[in-house]
Amino acid sequence: MTSMELLKQRTADIVSLQTTSAVLEWDQQTQMPPAGTARRASQLALLKKLSHDMFISSQTEQLLVAAEGEAEALDPDSDDSAFIKVVRRDFDKAAKLPTKLVEEIASTGSLANEQWQAARAQSNYAKFAPWLEKTLDLQRQVANHLGFKDERYDALLDLYEPEMSAAAVRTMFGQIKPPLVKLVKQIVGRGPDFVDTEPLTRECDEEKQRTFNEMVIKAFGFDFTRGRQDRAVHPFCTSFSNNDVRITTRYDSHFLPSALFGSLHETGHALYEMGVAGRYDGNMLQGGVSLGIHESQSRLWENLVGRSRGFWTCFYPQLQSQFPALGDVTLDAFYKAINRVKPSLIRVEADEITYNLHILLRFEIEIEMLEGRLSVADAPAAWNAKCEEYLGLTPANDAEGILQDVHWSWGAIGYFPTYSLGNVISVQLFEAASHSLGGEVPAQIERGEFAPLREWMSTNIYQWGRKYTPVELVQRSTSRSIDTTPYINYLTRKFGEIYKL
Amino acid sequence: MTSMELLKQRTADIVSLQTTSAVLEWDQQTQMPPAGTARRASQLALLKKLSHDMFISSQTEQLLVAAEGEAEALDPDSDDSAFIKVVRRDFDKAAKLPTKLVEEIASTGSLANEQWQAARAQSNYAKFAPWLEKTLDLQRQVANHLGFKDERYDALLDLYEPEMSAAAVRTMFGQIKPPLVKLVKQIVGRGPDFVDTEPLTRECDEEKQRTFNEMVIKAFGFDFTRGRQDRAVHPFCTSFSNNDVRITTRYDSHFLPSALFGSLHETGHALYEMGVAGRYDGNMLQGGVSLGIHESQSRLWENLVGRSRGFWTCFYPQLQSQFPALGDVTLDAFYKAINRVKPSLIRVEADEITYNLHILLRFEIEIEMLEGRLSVADAPAAWNAKCEEYLGLTPANDAEGILQDVHWSWGAIGYFPTYSLGNVISVQLFEAASHSLGGEVPAQIERGEFAPLREWMSTNIYQWGRKYTPVELVQRSTSRSIDTTPYINYLTRKFGEIYKL
Repeated sequence: MTSMELLKQRTADIVSLQTTSAVLEWDQQTQMPPAGTARRASQLALLKKLSHDMFISSQTEQLLVAAEGEAEALDPDSDDSAFIKVVRRDFDKAAKLPTKLVEEIASTGSLANEQWQAARAQSNYAKFAPWLEKTLDLQRQVANHLGFKDERYDALLDLYEPEMSAAAVRTMFGQIKPPLVKLVKQIVGRGPDFVDTEPLTRECDEEKQRTFNEMVIKAFGFDFTRGRQDRAVHPFCTSFSNNDVRITTRYDSHFLPSALFGSLHETGHALYEMGVAGRYDGNMLQGGVSLGIHESQSRLWENLVGRSRGFWTCFYPQLQSQFPALGDVTLDAFYKAINRVKPSLIRVEADEITYNLHILLRFEIEIEMLEGRLSVADAPAAWNAKCEEYLGLTPANDAEGILQDVHWSWGAIGYFPTYSLGNVISVQLFEAASHSLGGEVPAQIERGEFAPLREWMSTNIYQWGRKYTPVELVQRSTSRSIDTTPYINYLTRKFGEIYKL
Repeated sequence: MTSMELLKQRTADIVSLQTTSAVLEWDQQTQMPPAGTARRASQLALLKKLSHDMFISSQTEQLLVAAEGEAEALDPDSDDSAFIKVVRRDFDKAAKLPTKLVEEIASTGSLANEQWQAARAQSNYAKFAPWLEKTLDLQRQVANHLGFKDERYDALLDLYEPEMSAAAVRTMFGQIKPPLVKLVKQIVGRGPDFVDTEPLTRECDEEKQRTFNEMVIKAFGFDFTRGRQDRAVHPFCTSFSNNDVRITTRYDSHFLPSALFGSLHETGHALYEMGVAGRYDGNMLQGGVSLGIHESQSRLWENLVGRSRGFWTCFYPQLQSQFPALGDVTLDAFYKAINRVKPSLIRVEADEITYNLHILLRFEIEIEMLEGRLSVADAPAAWNAKCEEYLGLTPANDAEGILQDVHWSWGAIGYFPTYSLGNVISVQLFEAASHSLGGEVPAQIERGEFAPLREWMSTNIYQWGRKYTPVELVQRSTSRSIDTTPYINYLTRKFGEIYKL
């Protein structure tokens, strides 16, 4: 066997261990009886240790070096060349981190998460502050070990979004912030009653919600022979191969959009994972390439499709027949209700526009804290000030302010910007698809035909797994670098129409 | 740290890997989308290889030898002494088997199982015969590697039932076969219409079955904070710790007993696993000690409790209120229906008495094949002849004859006797409990009070996990060795009353 083949076997074992962890985590979130936690924690800790050790072992390194030698003769655009590049990138990152630090991050993460839960429940920032301090310290060490050119934040961002930089994120926000702030101001000027969301709060049977949502996601292309949907406290998508992709959702019997748009969102992630080429399965090229590209798909299917007027022109009659309580609500009123823009304090409840302001705030706070320019003690005040500045609102307490998100407690610093990046890319890709499909996509959506859009995404994005970097993928599929113009135009057009601006 | 402590850590990792495999297998049977099979197979193969390699490594052996030295100073009845004994027993067995052979058994098992499924579906024994030949050959190798005193079969039986021998199984069957054959003959003499089972085939809503069964198993003591019940094609019980024990069941909307007694049976297994002392959790003493002791618990809760007149005196009114179709069926008629004795061809559908004759037949056939005294080619004829001799019936084809059971396709030779052993032990334990509880157990069951019986089992059996051997457990808890007399008396008394013999 060649070193390339041996390296594939070895990394396939690592993928098997990683996806086994993913099965255990899915089970924990959806099935496990409460008392199972302790055993599950020891299983997960062991699997993570084994896969890390196996990956950074000298045996892997020797195979990698030998396979790199073999790869010199290959077409640089071949799968095998890409495989070697991805393994090298992952290996270097993993090998740079001392095992002690990896273990400390894991144990701190689970303790910090526990403390964060209690702190949020009591709105007691002081309880979480020492854990945030410790998390920042550990993440600074990670960045220092990984190395960076310009700023420390880049090293962490790169873990979620390869080849993205804080500078590029600043540029992106510099472009989208002024028009979004202006748009929000205009919308707020219309007064709080311009769009009525009361119909969305009418009672809606959970089982009927499930039936309707399942019908829609099947139409999108979610393949139930290769995936499943379950209830969970937090909606998420996980995949063990392109043939076993699982999403979760939560139901609110007095707020239809919760499970509905949650399901469409997670289905976007799932279509991506299901669409990765089968030949990458069990290979390190399997799965989505970055959080930003992933989010572009969840937001595309949730918002560009699922919150479009065309989509509801097709599906609203079916929704009404499932929920007769909506009988007196017109399509237009429903469409406006699900697109209502209103500055609010909680990110996960935010509308399409203000969502990005929540992300900007977090990006600015976390980068300042990481660089030590903002102390953990001063962070809540900084949060509240930015909240007032961007959203015109001040949190009444830290539970609805700086304590609201789970990410920092996990040790995820540098994760937030990928949400806005996904929003921006979603429109760029949607418009490229629409253009390439002769402008037919909106009409297809109105007829409930999603295959052409999905297949375009499959051909241009999904199938490539981790072969191309996010920047390469966007360039290849839209013939441009990441561009905020389509996104700004889309929001201006869509909400201009709704709010008659 | 002492070598004992280090050995505990190391074996805890092995337990974590083994229970991780169990989670993946449970998921495969109950949740996994159909297309997930390939990835799952590679995950399981890797985990099994890793845990085997880790267990038989020289590192484990050195720790074991050192810990054995430390244990010499300990009380031989202490947990640590038992731990060392159990690790030594498992280690010697695992280390004696060449890794090649273990891998060949695993891969043959999954192929043979696939071929068996097809062979059974087509009732085509010739299709399965070469795989049975291969399986027997591999199992002969296993027995030869493990070593044995008297007969090769002992080495395999010992894998499922430590310290049990073919000779002891022959003795057991020698004692129970004559009275059971006589009893069956008397019952058959009563004519086929003596007991009417038609009421059991009346339509019964699956959801209502689930509700009723769940109510009963909760009353038995199944703790849903430490376990769950799901649907699966094949009922089974699995456990990842004493705090995460899962059972499955299947529903037949035209045959109430299927899910009902299946649930009670699996709950017996689950109560055992949930009852193991918490201090053994993650230790090699965790879990049930043998299949025979396990089956004694499943059969005890299914038959001694669940098929008793007292149990239904308490629960039949509730069953009737759930299933009004049973309104015209008296308690006496229902009790007799669920206890009808009728020789039949299929083991899993057999009644309490004839079940053992199915097992005897399999025990005799597999031992003869293993020793090479019966050829694979001649086995179907031998099967059919014994079937006629013990049950008075001849299979019309091999699907309802020699192809009916899955066990041999998995490579499980020496497994079947544990079913009858479980039957025998179930009554011996039940009577010991009843005696020790002042003869109150039947009256408690009639009042729906199961805690005293469960707690007696917990104290005498469950809590000890793998600390004592099956023989020791029976001796300690009943002050006698395994004894068939209570079992024969129980069947004679119970069915004598039902059939007025």
